[in-house]
Amino acid sequence: MNTESPAYGCVALIGKYQSAEVAESLRTLAHWLRDAGREVLIEQASAEVMPDDRFESADFDALGRRAQLAVVVGGDGSLISAARKLAPFGVPLVGINQGRLGFLTDVARSSMLESLESLLRGDFRAERRVLMQAQVLREGRAVFSAFALNDVVISKGDLGRMIEFEVRVDGEFVYSQRSDGLIVATPTGSTAYSLSANGPIVHPSLGGMLIVPLCPHALSSRPIVLGDSAVLNVRLFSRHDARAHFDGQEHVNLQGDDVLRIERSPHQVTLLHPPGYSYFAMLREKLRWSEAPKEV
Amino acid sequence: MNTESPAYGCVALIGKYQSAEVAESLRTLAHWLRDAGREVLIEQASAEVMPDDRFESADFDALGRRAQLAVVVGGDGSLISAARKLAPFGVPLVGINQGRLGFLTDVARSSMLESLESLLRGDFRAERRVLMQAQVLREGRAVFSAFALNDVVISKGDLGRMIEFEVRVDGEFVYSQRSDGLIVATPTGSTAYSLSANGPIVHPSLGGMLIVPLCPHALSSRPIVLGDSAVLNVRLFSRHDARAHFDGQEHVNLQGDDVLRIERSPHQVTLLHPPGYSYFAMLREKLRWSEAPKEV
Amino acid sequence: MNTESPAYGCVALIGKYQSAEVAESLRTLAHWLRDAGREVLIEQASAEVMPDDRFESADFDALGRRAQLAVVVGGDGSLISAARKLAPFGVPLVGINQGRLGFLTDVARSSMLESLESLLRGDFRAERRVLMQAQVLREGRAVFSAFALNDVVISKGDLGRMIEFEVRVDGEFVYSQRSDGLIVATPTGSTAYSLSANGPIVHPSLGGMLIVPLCPHALSSRPIVLGDSAVLNVRLFSRHDARAHFDGQEHVNLQGDDVLRIERSPHQVTLLHPPGYSYFAMLREKLRWSEAPKEV
Amino acid sequence: MNTESPAYGCVALIGKYQSAEVAESLRTLAHWLRDAGREVLIEQASAEVMPDDRFESADFDALGRRAQLAVVVGGDGSLISAARKLAPFGVPLVGINQGRLGFLTDVARSSMLESLESLLRGDFRAERRVLMQAQVLREGRAVFSAFALNDVVISKGDLGRMIEFEVRVDGEFVYSQRSDGLIVATPTGSTAYSLSANGPIVHPSLGGMLIVPLCPHALSSRPIVLGDSAVLNVRLFSRHDARAHFDGQEHVNLQGDDVLRIERSPHQVTLLHPPGYSYFAMLREKLRWSEAPKEV
Repeated sequence: MNTESPAYGCVALIGKYQSAEVAESLRTLAHWLRDAGREVLIEQASAEVMPDDRFESADFDALGRRAQLAVVVGGDGSLISAARKLAPFGVPLVGINQGRLGFLTDVARSSMLESLESLLRGDFRAERRVLMQAQVLREGRAVFSAFALNDVVISKGDLGRMIEFEVRVDGEFVYSQRSDGLIVATPTGSTAYSLSANGPIVHPSLGGMLIVPLCPHALSSRPIVLGDSAVLNVRLFSRHDARAHFDGQEHVNLQGDDVLRIERSPHQVTLLHPPGYSYFAMLREKLRWSEAPKEV
Repeated sequence: MNTESPAYGCVALIGKYQSAEVAESLRTLAHWLRDAGREVLIEQASAEVMPDDRFESADFDALGRRAQLAVVVGGDGSLISAARKLAPFGVPLVGINQGRLGFLTDVARSSMLESLESLLRGDFRAERRVLMQAQVLREGRAVFSAFALNDVVISKGDLGRMIEFEVRVDGEFVYSQRSDGLIVATPTGSTAYSLSANGPIVHPSLGGMLIVPLCPHALSSRPIVLGDSAVLNVRLFSRHDARAHFDGQEHVNLQGDDVLRIERSPHQVTLLHPPGYSYFAMLREKLRWSEAPKEV
Repeated sequence: MNTESPAYGCVALIGKYQSAEVAESLRTLAHWLRDAGREVLIEQASAEVMPDDRFESADFDALGRRAQLAVVVGGDGSLISAARKLAPFGVPLVGINQGRLGFLTDVARSSMLESLESLLRGDFRAERRVLMQAQVLREGRAVFSAFALNDVVISKGDLGRMIEFEVRVDGEFVYSQRSDGLIVATPTGSTAYSLSANGPIVHPSLGGMLIVPLCPHALSSRPIVLGDSAVLNVRLFSRHDARAHFDGQEHVNLQGDDVLRIERSPHQVTLLHPPGYSYFAMLREKLRWSEAPKEV
Repeated sequence: MNTESPAYGCVALIGKYQSAEVAESLRTLAHWLRDAGREVLIEQASAEVMPDDRFESADFDALGRRAQLAVVVGGDGSLISAARKLAPFGVPLVGINQGRLGFLTDVARSSMLESLESLLRGDFRAERRVLMQAQVLREGRAVFSAFALNDVVISKGDLGRMIEFEVRVDGEFVYSQRSDGLIVATPTGSTAYSLSANGPIVHPSLGGMLIVPLCPHALSSRPIVLGDSAVLNVRLFSRHDARAHFDGQEHVNLQGDDVLRIERSPHQVTLLHPPGYSYFAMLREKLRWSEAPKEV
């Protein structure tokens, strides 16, 4: 419980791209925040769906510099997209879902105003989430770089052929692998794609980096959870095509001998949760772990 | 690499119980250490297999208080047994295997004297391993307590019937589970029994606590890696019999409504590794991950 | 759909042991069947819970010889128990659950009379299920034998130590294994314990025999589905204690060098399903596969 | 053991595409077979690598009509390719590997002449393998059809987005699934790609059809082994791109509402194995199941 009372004088509103339903929520939030004496900034692309409104719009850089809080309306994908863009600025985020609980967007639209009111009073729990930074190195030079809040996925490309690569941690050789690819996930990403590929759930308080093979040729391959300071290098052997995906939102085509270098970013993402938030309650609902605690 | 030169003035020697082969190694080590000017203490039970020798023997408490180093000859089981007994004293351990590399006993018998020589020079790598402490609470009172370097396993008992229990972390309800049992493992234990039950490998530098269900009735159950400060409570519902095993070396029969409370111990185990030790090289050999790094 | 009209002149009623709720259903069924002109036999132990009734009771042998149909009221365990005892007689079975759909007991109590009416009209689907027969061979002699409709499970015993055994199929060596045990399952048993141990679902129409290791030490172990005529021999190496369980309803303690011989029984179990029964619909409900087919 | 003595009067020789090493083996085989009084036909594309030789070459259709035996030199991929083309003709195949044992090519190059000699004497074991036939149905019309000896894989396409589809067996709804795709495999294919995706091993004598999800979104998804006569329909919902791969040797791009219909082909593939062949010995070597049977 965060007991200091933050002003949150300037609040950024960010919506899922091109959704009329989201525009309606954004409008409600904007007016409510203005009435509560806050400066309101609408993210530029989101502002396009609410053209008749008289709120200032700004791009992500301006939001990052000016806002003390970012409210994202949409699904987990929208929140991740905003978090990656705001990462360097340290703006805390709160996610408002459109009816279906997300792993990250845990405020229901139906209670968004009450939740914001708690938040402006400081009655919220702040949670830090690890962010990774990834670079594609080609002949020693970085030709691409990106943040990832969920995962970096190296996968086979169009031809659909198994790829082959070598994994090193802090320079130490781990293994060579032939597989459909490799997921490198944060604890946040452990409940996303990685979980479908038989990866474990990693509690966000732990940190660390998770590597999970996709259909590995060697039957003794297993998911590995690496230490928090690990620097991971994945070097492609394959002459076949391969691709790297960053949070499923950006991708880059890889060439033979490319190295994907992944490590923890110095930036973190701060999520704000409403009072009563429980990580495990969210897991139970999302993963259909049914049972309530037994009465004794 | 530890470059300061520790004296290791008093060295404890501990051997696998009742092995003539081990006695021979202990004798060689004892003489070599005395010649190197060290005080040598033989663990009491180990001393029984070398009755004609003129070395002082001592029980684990005395070893813990007096020795600056413990040399264990045997397999991982022997090292774990010694580590649990010496845990409160903080004596660092080195493990000498009898020909087959262990996860923890990484000095080969054939090179034990060279390795000890490096060690006395300070040319060794010290690695801290998390230790758990576990208590069985019955009607609010602790009726049993133990350390675990690998794992605490709650399992069905003699009747072979599925058991049912509730898991809480830091008081927060996680789930109720019907299964054959639950493994709670340290990173060290992640490569032991937990791995057979489809748990992930957790690097020892990460810390944390791993919970892995054994044949869970609910198909959506997954291994979970918890944060480092997690306090885990497992409360039995079942009227059927259940049992808790600590590192496979001690066990206790559980009753309905017993609570098993597991958390990180304030003590740690310090392992000393020879120069050139690589965690991943050890994994590759133990898990038969075949490949050497490719030449480029 | 079975269109010939079987007489089912003599019907056996079998209930879950010692349940007053079940007694009530048995009574209703008995009277309804007598009114429908059928001879009614109550299984002896089941008859004990309905002492005031004037129906003939009989043991399983007599039921097997005289009845043309067995109606089992209870859960899957009750049906399996009855099926194993009636196996040599070929009496078809129908299972009536007490409110919660079973894998095998698919007639709801609330519709049991309608279902029986359909059945007496011949409007039911008969489905054959493979049955296994298992023998424990000690020094060449069979010291125990049993049927299994679900599975034979070889497991570690009281000491909780891994066991070691060798598996042969039709005399051909398959592997030696160190593990917590081995499940040998029919297609029927593939949705029972085997499923918790990561075994595949095997459709009952296929036949075959499924072997699934329990926490195998070798990471490359996988479930294997054997051919229909396979004769499986599992020979224990371990000096540690082990146990064999048959459908979770009988067990026998094993000794070192015991051989467990398992093969398909010449007998089969015939289950009768109500009109509209769907194997996959049952799976979806039991395994919480949520979705209905999409409308197009 | 096949004791009748087949004449094998006309033998087809087929080699891995464009390999000089294979050409050398083909030449040796061709001369040896001619000396043994057999008519020799070289597959047309294979003949290109041995231009100076005076053997008749023929396309697959001609081979299928004229040869009583096909000898394939290369890896499993080469044998599968030949088997699919020869499937309608029922020509038995023997596979000669180039040094590394295959799942299907079990005659070593070093002993190929001895093996052929046994074969011409009739001292070989013939084994039938199930073949699947698959069709892509678009608006009710078959727009593509192919055989598969290993597997049909439906996978996400270039965009890398999860796909969604519905599975029916014999018209009965099984489930809707969101995943990276689905493997539909024969028992032969159960040790190929399917095994990397956690599918079970299915003994070739069993028949049946295996469906294995690729990274399914629902955690309760499991591999299913279907009955031998199952007709499987997979209907795509997704507007995203998807692709179907047949034995990894042909593929077709799928559109929304396409139905992939897969069933057992009336054709089978006959493999000839040398004396002493053991399916499980081959598995142990390929899957690195280490252990030999223990001496007692």
